[in-house]
Amino acid sequence: MKISCIGAGNVAWHLTQALEKKGHQILEIYSRQPEHAQVLAQVLTHAGAINTLDFRESKAELILLAVSDDALESVLRSLKVSPQIILAHTSGSKPLEVFKHLKNPCGVFYPLQTFSKNKTVDFSEIPCCIEASDLGTQGFLIQLASELSRKVYSVNSEQRKNLHLAAVMACNFSNHLMAIAQQILEDQQLEFAMLKALIRETFEKALMYPPKSVQTGPARRGDLEILNIHQDMLLEYPNYRMIYEILSQSILEMYS
Amino acid sequence: MKISCIGAGNVAWHLTQALEKKGHQILEIYSRQPEHAQVLAQVLTHAGAINTLDFRESKAELILLAVSDDALESVLRSLKVSPQIILAHTSGSKPLEVFKHLKNPCGVFYPLQTFSKNKTVDFSEIPCCIEASDLGTQGFLIQLASELSRKVYSVNSEQRKNLHLAAVMACNFSNHLMAIAQQILEDQQLEFAMLKALIRETFEKALMYPPKSVQTGPARRGDLEILNIHQDMLLEYPNYRMIYEILSQSILEMYS
Repeated sequence: MKISCIGAGNVAWHLTQALEKKGHQILEIYSRQPEHAQVLAQVLTHAGAINTLDFRESKAELILLAVSDDALESVLRSLKVSPQIILAHTSGSKPLEVFKHLKNPCGVFYPLQTFSKNKTVDFSEIPCCIEASDLGTQGFLIQLASELSRKVYSVNSEQRKNLHLAAVMACNFSNHLMAIAQQILEDQQLEFAMLKALIRETFEKALMYPPKSVQTGPARRGDLEILNIHQDMLLEYPNYRMIYEILSQSILEMYS
Repeated sequence: MKISCIGAGNVAWHLTQALEKKGHQILEIYSRQPEHAQVLAQVLTHAGAINTLDFRESKAELILLAVSDDALESVLRSLKVSPQIILAHTSGSKPLEVFKHLKNPCGVFYPLQTFSKNKTVDFSEIPCCIEASDLGTQGFLIQLASELSRKVYSVNSEQRKNLHLAAVMACNFSNHLMAIAQQILEDQQLEFAMLKALIRETFEKALMYPPKSVQTGPARRGDLEILNIHQDMLLEYPNYRMIYEILSQSILEMYS
């Protein structure tokens, strides 16, 4: 399969390389920042960086749109493609409808994972969420996803939006809480490393049992004295104090 | 070493069994709920459940106070001990000062881990935070902790309070966010299992790099459009909406 990719960020970086490993040919990489497209094209065997969104002469059968949500609609307005090319975006939040002004077969190929360029990921474990404009495209994208991953799901736009929201809650926000914890510790000349065993245990437990059933901590116990002490300790960090208060309140209510 | 334990909750459950494995003898278990003391005493080789806080006839050299923070001070008021017995509580939040009306050598033995009775833990990886009234007791508790764990720290009361606060942030609150994510998914007929690869990747990354440096997500990207969409999606869950708003705001500010 001949594939081109619009976008050269983290998703494009991992997805194009995973596709190439499965024998697909990545032809063109476009990025608003041409140097990003060049860097990605260089790690791929056949790819070249291009500076235009005019794909009418492209040999690609599939164009992946792995751009930021902000950019997706403006890229689609500028895109020029012949009508038989399949288009698929990789966004968790954007509906299939973003393609509605185009006649192409189109779909969504959303890999539910957080990517960083400097950390390799095992694509076979990444859930791929597929949606498409028609059954043929749906089958095509499911087939492609199945080559990369053991976990392929058909997910409609409404479900995908909620999946993304849930991922933000469970992952992005958890990471931020760990960053806050690190700051609290370092302000006391303590190493973040002291928390690592506890963090590991917390997440492993939440992956093994329903997280609601393994909640621990002062709010879970209804220990209002500690909740007040902790909030007083956070007077110097008004944001963190608010976070502490709102999350504790939410735990108290979930188990009340 | 002959040890008795006041409390039969999760900390007492794991700590007494770990001490027994290292050759220590657990003599007495006291709990406000006598049946809890009996259950724990039965899994220990030499222990008996007792119904009194009068330890003046006890052969124990050390009494561990593994009770809830709420109960610690009232237990200490009722406790009758001969003055040479070492007393140590296991609380992350209570200062060493709770012992100040007693003449006994005393200290804190705080294992920084979340315990559930139905899940075994590897004590050798659990950071044990030690504080004591005098150098002799400090040395004694550090020695005891070193038999159980490779990670023993001297931590004063102020640091320990902050460690506990940081643990609540990084662990208890992260778990609650995962419980919220599960609810959001199940309301959409999606399995929580879909998020597991992403959750695993998130915390493994946060254990490998400083969490602040690996933050991802719409707030990190400053993608205000998605932030608004997600908040609108949470209209039916006012608590979760507030959590989303406050955490996103905190991320925006951390990277602004």
